[in-house]
Amino acid sequence: MRATVIHALGDIRSETRPDPVVQEPTDAVVRVLATCVCGSDLWPYRGENPVDEPHGIGHEHVGVVEAVGAAVTDVRVGDVVVAPFTFSCGRCVHCLAGVHTSCLVGGVFGGETGCQAELVRVPQAGGTLVRVDGFSAAAPPPDDLLRDLLACSDVMGTGWHAARAAGVREGSTVVVVGDGAVGLCGVLAAVQQGAARVVAMSRHADRQALARRFGATDVVAERGEAGEQAVLELTDGVGADAVLECVGTEQSMRTAFAVARPGSTVGFVGVPHGGRPPLSRMFRQNIGLAGGIAPVRAYLPTLLPLVLAGSIHPGAVLDAELPLAEAAEAYRRMDARESVKVLLRP
Amino acid sequence: MRATVIHALGDIRSETRPDPVVQEPTDAVVRVLATCVCGSDLWPYRGENPVDEPHGIGHEHVGVVEAVGAAVTDVRVGDVVVAPFTFSCGRCVHCLAGVHTSCLVGGVFGGETGCQAELVRVPQAGGTLVRVDGFSAAAPPPDDLLRDLLACSDVMGTGWHAARAAGVREGSTVVVVGDGAVGLCGVLAAVQQGAARVVAMSRHADRQALARRFGATDVVAERGEAGEQAVLELTDGVGADAVLECVGTEQSMRTAFAVARPGSTVGFVGVPHGGRPPLSRMFRQNIGLAGGIAPVRAYLPTLLPLVLAGSIHPGAVLDAELPLAEAAEAYRRMDARESVKVLLRP
Repeated sequence: MRATVIHALGDIRSETRPDPVVQEPTDAVVRVLATCVCGSDLWPYRGENPVDEPHGIGHEHVGVVEAVGAAVTDVRVGDVVVAPFTFSCGRCVHCLAGVHTSCLVGGVFGGETGCQAELVRVPQAGGTLVRVDGFSAAAPPPDDLLRDLLACSDVMGTGWHAARAAGVREGSTVVVVGDGAVGLCGVLAAVQQGAARVVAMSRHADRQALARRFGATDVVAERGEAGEQAVLELTDGVGADAVLECVGTEQSMRTAFAVARPGSTVGFVGVPHGGRPPLSRMFRQNIGLAGGIAPVRAYLPTLLPLVLAGSIHPGAVLDAELPLAEAAEAYRRMDARESVKVLLRP
Repeated sequence: MRATVIHALGDIRSETRPDPVVQEPTDAVVRVLATCVCGSDLWPYRGENPVDEPHGIGHEHVGVVEAVGAAVTDVRVGDVVVAPFTFSCGRCVHCLAGVHTSCLVGGVFGGETGCQAELVRVPQAGGTLVRVDGFSAAAPPPDDLLRDLLACSDVMGTGWHAARAAGVREGSTVVVVGDGAVGLCGVLAAVQQGAARVVAMSRHADRQALARRFGATDVVAERGEAGEQAVLELTDGVGADAVLECVGTEQSMRTAFAVARPGSTVGFVGVPHGGRPPLSRMFRQNIGLAGGIAPVRAYLPTLLPLVLAGSIHPGAVLDAELPLAEAAEAYRRMDARESVKVLLRP
C-alpha cells in the first residue's frame, strides 16, 4: 500500500509499505477514504520533536472496514467508520470514565499505525471505531460530509474538549487563543455549547472569516500584550468566562491566562511546547487549568449526529485537498500556513 | 487596644495600639470574641516571606459589631458576626460571580486591619460580615460553637473551596494532601460534599485521629514516593477522583498530581511556595488544577447553617487556646507543630 513516512526534519515521503493485517483478535484493518495532516504532525516536520528513525505518520482517518479480528463485534467488514486519533478499549476504568486517551491498552495512531496511508491497522477496533450508518465503500459519504466526519477524527473533538474543559456554558463569553484548525473548531464548539459571545484571536484574514462563519462574534487580530488589552477592552476589563488555549506555546499560554477572568478556567488542548501556567496568578485570581489530549472517542456520539444533521460543518477547516501521494506538498503548504488543514485522498 | 504585631522573623509581640475607628462610611469596627493563628501567618514568622516593617497580623475573627459607618446597613451594632479572611463589597462583578477574593475594592485582613487584636476595622463591612442570629455581646456563642464559627473564618471555608475546586461529588474517592487545619477541614468538606472514601495523608498521630473523626476512611502516613505508592495501592492503581492540595510546597504539589487519576482535578488552596504543576502529566492524563485563595465569603451562607445545626465541628482543629496577650507563644507552638491551630481570646 501507499503510506506516508517521515524520515527527518522536513523530509516527508510517500512510499510503498506492506499492507497492514489483523494481528490481534481486537484489530481491524480500515481502507482509508480520507485522511489529513494535523498541526501536531508539523512538530516533527519542523524538527521541534526529534525523528529518530523513519516512521509512518498521520493519526486521522475516515474509512471502510476491510477486515476484523475474531474479537471485534462492534463493527463489521464494509462499515464506514470514523476513528478518533487515539485507540482505546472502551471497557477499562479510564475509558468508562470518559478519558479514553488514558486507556490502559490504548495509544495514539502513528508509526506502524500511521493514518496517512491507504490502509490502517486499528488496534482495539471495537472500542475505537464509530460506525456511520447508511454508507458503504460503494456509496461513500459525499465530499462535504466526508470532510465533516474527518474533522471529527481530531480537530473538532479537540476543540470540543477545550470548550468542555474551559467550562463553557449558556451565555458564556469565550476567548479562543489560536486560529489553527483546532482553534477554529473551538469557536464552533463554544457556540454549540451555548456561548453568547466568542472572541477569536486571529491575525489571518481567511481564518478570521472562517471563525466568523463558525460563529465568532468578535475578532482580535493583535497578539501578545496588545491582543490581551484588546480582549480586556471588549469585556469591560473583566476578562472571559472561559478561555480555549489551542496552541501550546509560551505566548499563547500567557495570553490565555491574561484574558481569563477571576474564577474562570483555561481549557488547554495545544500540546505544551514551552508554556508554563502562571501559578501565582492562578492562585490569586482562582483561574483553573484543565484539558489535555482530547478523548475524542468520548465526544463522537455527540459530534457525529451534529455533523450528520448538518448542524455543524467542521470540515470547512479542511481548506485544501491533495492526493495521498502528494503528502509532502500538503506538509509544505501547512508549514507555510498556505492552508489551514489539507485533506489527503488515497 | 491590645494587638499582635510581627516585627521580624520569629518576633511576634503583643502591643498597645490606637483603637481602630470607622474611617469610611462602609467600615465597621468589630470587638473580637475570638481570633486565631493561621498556617499562612507562619510564613513571615519563619522568614519565608519578608517582614519589611512591623505590622499587625491575623486575618480570622469572630466578634461583635461595635460601630458602623453610615453606609453599612447589612449589620448593626451589637450583631455577632463572622468575618471571612478577606473583605469584599458583595456587589462588584467578581463578588456577584462568587469570587469575592477578587473584589474590585477588597483585600486581605492584616496590617492595619490585623485581626489578632481586641478590635478590628472591617472595610466593606456590609459585603463582608455575616451575622449569626441569636447571640450578642451579653450572650455570646458558647465556646464550642465559637470555635466552629471561627474555623469558618478561613480554614473551613478554605478546605471547602479545595473540595469544590477539585470537583468532589457523591461517591468520590478523595485524597487530601496536608494535615494542617486546612487539610483537616478539607476532609470534613469532602465528606459533606458526598465523598465515599477520603484518604488523609498525615504522619502525626493526633492529626490522623482528627482526620478520622472528621470522616477520613483511610490514612496514609508515608510521604513522597512511598506515600504516592500507598495511595495508588489503596485505589487499585487508579488514583483519586479528586485531590485536595492543602500545603503549597513543591513536594505536596508533586504528590497531589501523582495520586490524581486521569480526568481528575487537583484543588489547590495552599499558598504556592515553590510548587510547580507538572504540565506534561496534566496534558497527557487530563488532570486539571483549580482553586486558589478561597472566596470564603461565598461559602459562609452554606457553612454557618451546618455549624449552627451541629452537623460539622470544624472548630476541633483549634486544639489549643491562649490569651491574646500570649500570641507569641501561640506562634511558637504552631511553628513547633505542638498545636494544629491556636485560638486567641482577647
